Amino acid sequence: MSVDPCVSGPREVVAALDVGGTTIKAAIVGVGGRFQHRRVLRTPVTEGPDAVVAAVLGEVRALIAHAEGSGSSSVCGIGLVVPGSVDAAAGVARFAANIGWRNVALGALVEKETGIPCSVEHDVRAAGIAEAALGRVAGVDDAILAVIGTGLAAVLWSAGRQVSGASRLAGELGHLPVWPDGEPCPCGQRGCLERYASAGAIVRRYEQATGRHTTGEAIVALAEHEGAARDVWRDAITALSIGLASCTMLLDPALIVLGGGLSSAGERLRAAVSNALATRVVWRDPPPVEISPLGAGAGLLGAAILAADAAGVPGLVASGSR
Amino acid sequence: MSVDPCVSGPREVVAALDVGGTTIKAAIVGVGGRFQHRRVLRTPVTEGPDAVVAAVLGEVRALIAHAEGSGSSSVCGIGLVVPGSVDAAAGVARFAANIGWRNVALGALVEKETGIPCSVEHDVRAAGIAEAALGRVAGVDDAILAVIGTGLAAVLWSAGRQVSGASRLAGELGHLPVWPDGEPCPCGQRGCLERYASAGAIVRRYEQATGRHTTGEAIVALAEHEGAARDVWRDAITALSIGLASCTMLLDPALIVLGGGLSSAGERLRAAVSNALATRVVWRDPPPVEISPLGAGAGLLGAAILAADAAGVPGLVASGSR
Repeated sequence: MSVDPCVSGPREVVAALDVGGTTIKAAIVGVGGRFQHRRVLRTPVTEGPDAVVAAVLGEVRALIAHAEGSGSSSVCGIGLVVPGSVDAAAGVARFAANIGWRNVALGALVEKETGIPCSVEHDVRAAGIAEAALGRVAGVDDAILAVIGTGLAAVLWSAGRQVSGASRLAGELGHLPVWPDGEPCPCGQRGCLERYASAGAIVRRYEQATGRHTTGEAIVALAEHEGAARDVWRDAITALSIGLASCTMLLDPALIVLGGGLSSAGERLRAAVSNALATRVVWRDPPPVEISPLGAGAGLLGAAILAADAAGVPGLVASGSR
Repeated sequence: MSVDPCVSGPREVVAALDVGGTTIKAAIVGVGGRFQHRRVLRTPVTEGPDAVVAAVLGEVRALIAHAEGSGSSSVCGIGLVVPGSVDAAAGVARFAANIGWRNVALGALVEKETGIPCSVEHDVRAAGIAEAALGRVAGVDDAILAVIGTGLAAVLWSAGRQVSGASRLAGELGHLPVWPDGEPCPCGQRGCLERYASAGAIVRRYEQATGRHTTGEAIVALAEHEGAARDVWRDAITALSIGLASCTMLLDPALIVLGGGLSSAGERLRAAVSNALATRVVWRDPPPVEISPLGAGAGLLGAAILAADAAGVPGLVASGSR
């Protein structure tokens, strides 16, 4: 990995932020994608959209102060990744339902505040950039990354390139109609995969069945010996296998990678999805299913890669990003 | 459209054959994709796979004789398109269930017989090449062509390129599990789109319901005033809309084009699919749905484009094929 030695003083690093509806993950990232400093704060959604912008700007300042405090590092680029609809070219968060943002010019705000180039991207797309550069999709031309968190979306690669679609709306795996007459989805459709298989859905469906609120990971573990958890988990895996069977038929991936928060369930998740997929893709070999080595940190790492691109030092965090 | 004037004698033309399980379509095609001669013969499947090879070779000879008989034309390339699994680089029909072919080196056989370069390709992929060069997908970077005939498959484009997949198995729209617990499919899966929405399925399901055998086109017309036809047609349209909703979520096409034999149903098909899709894609605009202007002849036109490529005269039939 070669680094552009454009400064001979402090080592260059980037500031990366993954802004979600629940938490803001923030990090200083250096050569080769190494995290030098990392913290998680609560997203102040209850205080309104402006408070979240203020929190982001405050955290950017804190990251810069941390990196430059010792005099040994210099922040040369900033990457922000956010959910919802993003105009990456303009640096604008077009619409983020969880946060209440509408046409927030985040990139310009951060650049004005700091004087440092800033890149803004969609969180799932950024996770895909990280997965292709430093994760399991590196060197794989045709692949699918399913990011299973509060929501559920995918990054698709065909012939080595991310599939964007005509309006940059490709990869909405969570809204595949896996059971066409199934549960209504807030999106207005019925039977969407996200209603059954996202971590958010698993928590909600378990709470509906038992009255108990717990985490997706806990429910996955409970599924080994408790009926209600087993039912919720079985539906999630069945729904995922239907959705991934459709992906396989349409796109013929060499590999399916499972990322996002639920990927912390590890082999329990991987084996269940792989076995279920094999029952639904029978006339051709189903693609192998693997857990992302980047997990829920992929979005943050993607933000760091994009920050280095914005700074004009594309090899700083990862060579060969695509 | 520029033509390589590599001969100053007879006008250069290509021979194109679309070999299906029911018919062999054959044509002489000249500059700009103009059909100069065209005929359809029955595929002698009942006489075994070798008889079909012999029929193809016989028809190739007949096309050449026809073109060159008057002395005004010269066949510079041959294109064969076939169903099933095709190794286009090797010119081999790997597996075609309807015809009984297994590893038939069609390209080499034709070249040995004629001394003329021959290209072999999958019929649906060839239809996509024609649609992108001379049909509705020309100039559209992100699109889907659903080819609805005896079977059902698709060509997908992302950022201006056909999506091939890791094993050239992409586009199997017919095997999307639209009703996961639905009818068993000969492929071994359940609820495949092809079981409801292909012309073959419409004929079969209508015959199961009424005992009457008729064409898909006739059933579409009957659906306006006869209950059994209406039920079969409604299921076909519902299944298609579920499958195309999944395609839209994953790939975000700017356009969906309906081709293949059933596209002769025209506006009846287009309007029904478009309306059904609008009920299943609600949080974003559904893409427009159009009927292919090339219809069931797209495969043959694709064969002609590939024949010109094989002859080293890529601009002969269509400029800018992809």
